[in-house]
Amino acid sequence: MQEVDILIEGGTVLTLDDADTILHSGSVAIRGDRIVAVGPRAEIANRYRGRKVVDAAGHVVMPGLVNAHTHAAMTCFRGIADDLELMEWLNQYIFPAEAKNVDPELAYWGSLLACAEMIRSGTTCFCDMYIFEDETARAASLAGMRCLLGEVLFDFPSPNFKTPDEGLACTESLITQWAGHDLVRITVEPHALYTCSPDLLKKSKALADRHGVPLSLHLLETRSEREGLTEKLGCSPVRFLRDTGLLDENLLAFHCVWLDEADIEMMARAGAKAVHNPESNMKLASGIAPVPALQAAGVTVALGTDGCASNNNLDMLQEMDTAAKLHKVSRLDPTAMSAKTVLRMATVDGARALGMGADAGRLAPGMKADVITLDFNRPHLTPVYSEYSHLVYCATGSDVDNVMINGRLVMENRRILTFDEGEAMDRVNAIARRIRASLGM
Amino acid sequence: MQEVDILIEGGTVLTLDDADTILHSGSVAIRGDRIVAVGPRAEIANRYRGRKVVDAAGHVVMPGLVNAHTHAAMTCFRGIADDLELMEWLNQYIFPAEAKNVDPELAYWGSLLACAEMIRSGTTCFCDMYIFEDETARAASLAGMRCLLGEVLFDFPSPNFKTPDEGLACTESLITQWAGHDLVRITVEPHALYTCSPDLLKKSKALADRHGVPLSLHLLETRSEREGLTEKLGCSPVRFLRDTGLLDENLLAFHCVWLDEADIEMMARAGAKAVHNPESNMKLASGIAPVPALQAAGVTVALGTDGCASNNNLDMLQEMDTAAKLHKVSRLDPTAMSAKTVLRMATVDGARALGMGADAGRLAPGMKADVITLDFNRPHLTPVYSEYSHLVYCATGSDVDNVMINGRLVMENRRILTFDEGEAMDRVNAIARRIRASLGM
Repeated sequence: MQEVDILIEGGTVLTLDDADTILHSGSVAIRGDRIVAVGPRAEIANRYRGRKVVDAAGHVVMPGLVNAHTHAAMTCFRGIADDLELMEWLNQYIFPAEAKNVDPELAYWGSLLACAEMIRSGTTCFCDMYIFEDETARAASLAGMRCLLGEVLFDFPSPNFKTPDEGLACTESLITQWAGHDLVRITVEPHALYTCSPDLLKKSKALADRHGVPLSLHLLETRSEREGLTEKLGCSPVRFLRDTGLLDENLLAFHCVWLDEADIEMMARAGAKAVHNPESNMKLASGIAPVPALQAAGVTVALGTDGCASNNNLDMLQEMDTAAKLHKVSRLDPTAMSAKTVLRMATVDGARALGMGADAGRLAPGMKADVITLDFNRPHLTPVYSEYSHLVYCATGSDVDNVMINGRLVMENRRILTFDEGEAMDRVNAIARRIRASLGM
Repeated sequence: MQEVDILIEGGTVLTLDDADTILHSGSVAIRGDRIVAVGPRAEIANRYRGRKVVDAAGHVVMPGLVNAHTHAAMTCFRGIADDLELMEWLNQYIFPAEAKNVDPELAYWGSLLACAEMIRSGTTCFCDMYIFEDETARAASLAGMRCLLGEVLFDFPSPNFKTPDEGLACTESLITQWAGHDLVRITVEPHALYTCSPDLLKKSKALADRHGVPLSLHLLETRSEREGLTEKLGCSPVRFLRDTGLLDENLLAFHCVWLDEADIEMMARAGAKAVHNPESNMKLASGIAPVPALQAAGVTVALGTDGCASNNNLDMLQEMDTAAKLHKVSRLDPTAMSAKTVLRMATVDGARALGMGADAGRLAPGMKADVITLDFNRPHLTPVYSEYSHLVYCATGSDVDNVMINGRLVMENRRILTFDEGEAMDRVNAIARRIRASLGM
């Protein structure tokens, strides 16, 4: 009998392995930051004694969800303006609100509030792009969340840097500062092709390659972006990425709404990764990304919520529901995207897209212990014919009750253990008062 | 100082009146089954003393949600099969599961479980169509939910009747049996134009008119339905309804996905009501109903979840989110449907569509007291710039904590007071085992 730190006992365990193995009364044993065993309850009980036991009877046990694109600190702008023309929304609300208010304090508390919301809805790992990302890294580290993040880079000044070179230096300092951290990894993040010069893009890629980290950017979110870039560049924006050396297996491209067939083929051949953000793309009326075609071509597609100015929540369980339904209706084909496909996008494919496929996204011995449990003993989850179906089409974040990340219990019975979420809410409420005043609201 | 039965004190009160009045620290006084006063907290405190006080500080107080189309008992089939071609889904799963299993027991316990889910997610009134609706009426009455319901009628035998005339007799018996009930009202419900002969449709209309009750049916849910009917009838199905006298202000038409401009014009001129079911229409890949065009033409459009075989939940807060986003992306226009519009569809327009506009859907003196409160002191609802935005884009059913219907507190701090939801879950789980066995699952 071996001792382990945490034993999750007796739940329906979805491993998300290649065979989609489900253990109907299973257990997961965790020692340190890693899973040491996954198996039938009786078998695990014979081999392991847990110093801490999580009773998962009546629960689903599964890998934590991966939110592959967000702007965590933007919780501070949640619902500040909606239902407007894009340019009115950006120019009258989002840009002025950001210009007048984004500082390290907003970045820290907004990110910590985002961590509370993400943990509460079963997300254990997120990919972030924003300003003052060192603050987001500090918040994630305190919250105990796994993340891949980077400082947003563009040609014009940000609240955190005056020139693109300062932005690159800031990113390099993030890379060295957080090197070897258990939870925080850094990516180089030029914002998009329409906000970054070819020079900045190339310098970003060189920086990423020098340190062996991924490069991430927004790609073809709107139709007008595609039209403008195609005219400016004289070719498809994806071809431009390829020709400048950015399109490779270390590229993580957010949105990917307006790709054509040739773009999809180039993405697939290069091994680039895509992130689908259906709720944001719907709410901003950007369009519907060709996810089934990307997947058919062999591109790894992850799922993300985008930031709280454009969604307006960080609940990956709702995002899965929307993703599955959106592609069915847009193709008038109910087989266009299955619950299983979407659940893999939110777990194993998400981890793979973030370069963490060997650590996260599945439950197996040797993987990092990023595990969540959901209470299925609820009216809206009764009866159960298929756990996959219920996770995608019925569950919401509030059904998650325990969250472990890197072997640490960060939420137990819906109580967050790693930080004071009430303080984060109070601080963000105070920041929102300042934002409102700054806009004369 | 007058005594009232319930005083809801100190919340942000959304009245949903014509001016969309919001009271930022308001109270609602309830006596018997009706609201007697809505106003600023201090003013109400000076005039009314509550025998029961609901503290709503930090909460939103609003009219209960109206789910204008569902099949409550189908909770028993929640998630039994998904992501399949429509005919495979119907012929291999839904139809055989129903033929072998639907009986009064399933109808009663499935409906009671649906009531638990609906109450928990803030729905106070629903419109139902299924088999053995007397059982659904008994369940709703026990649960304390307001409803408009009817026995589904079609040309072929149902588990509850052998001939269409028996179905009509069953409906008439429902009408007389539940006449004058506080909560339960009856509608005549021929299933659809493709399942009911012109004779059955005309007899249904005559029955509805004889008793002064509404007539409800599924209308143009799929493209193939439109094509088949147009060929069979020799004209647009809506024109057929008009020419046979069914298209009037007492008609409630579910789905309305494949309407053309002329249909919309006829619906508007007749004062017929439509119900939009976006999540079901997405999941079954039926299409996107022309809701903005219906509303522009002046048609009252309500919102519904459809049944749990095709959604797979009854959460109207999620349905609102989907409705708002779906029309934006389908028109590539972020102004296509605002949060306010959707919230009105789920409250005041829903009540109006069900012929209950004078009783429900708004908070005002003299209205029936169907009131819900939502706890906004939560990470995913922080900060608050607009309550309307948060209700549509951030909140889910689990944020609802108190529900009053017809002046009765049916859920308090998320505990259902009117029946044992655990028993309903146990009974539905047992029924699901029987269903599984009947299909050899």
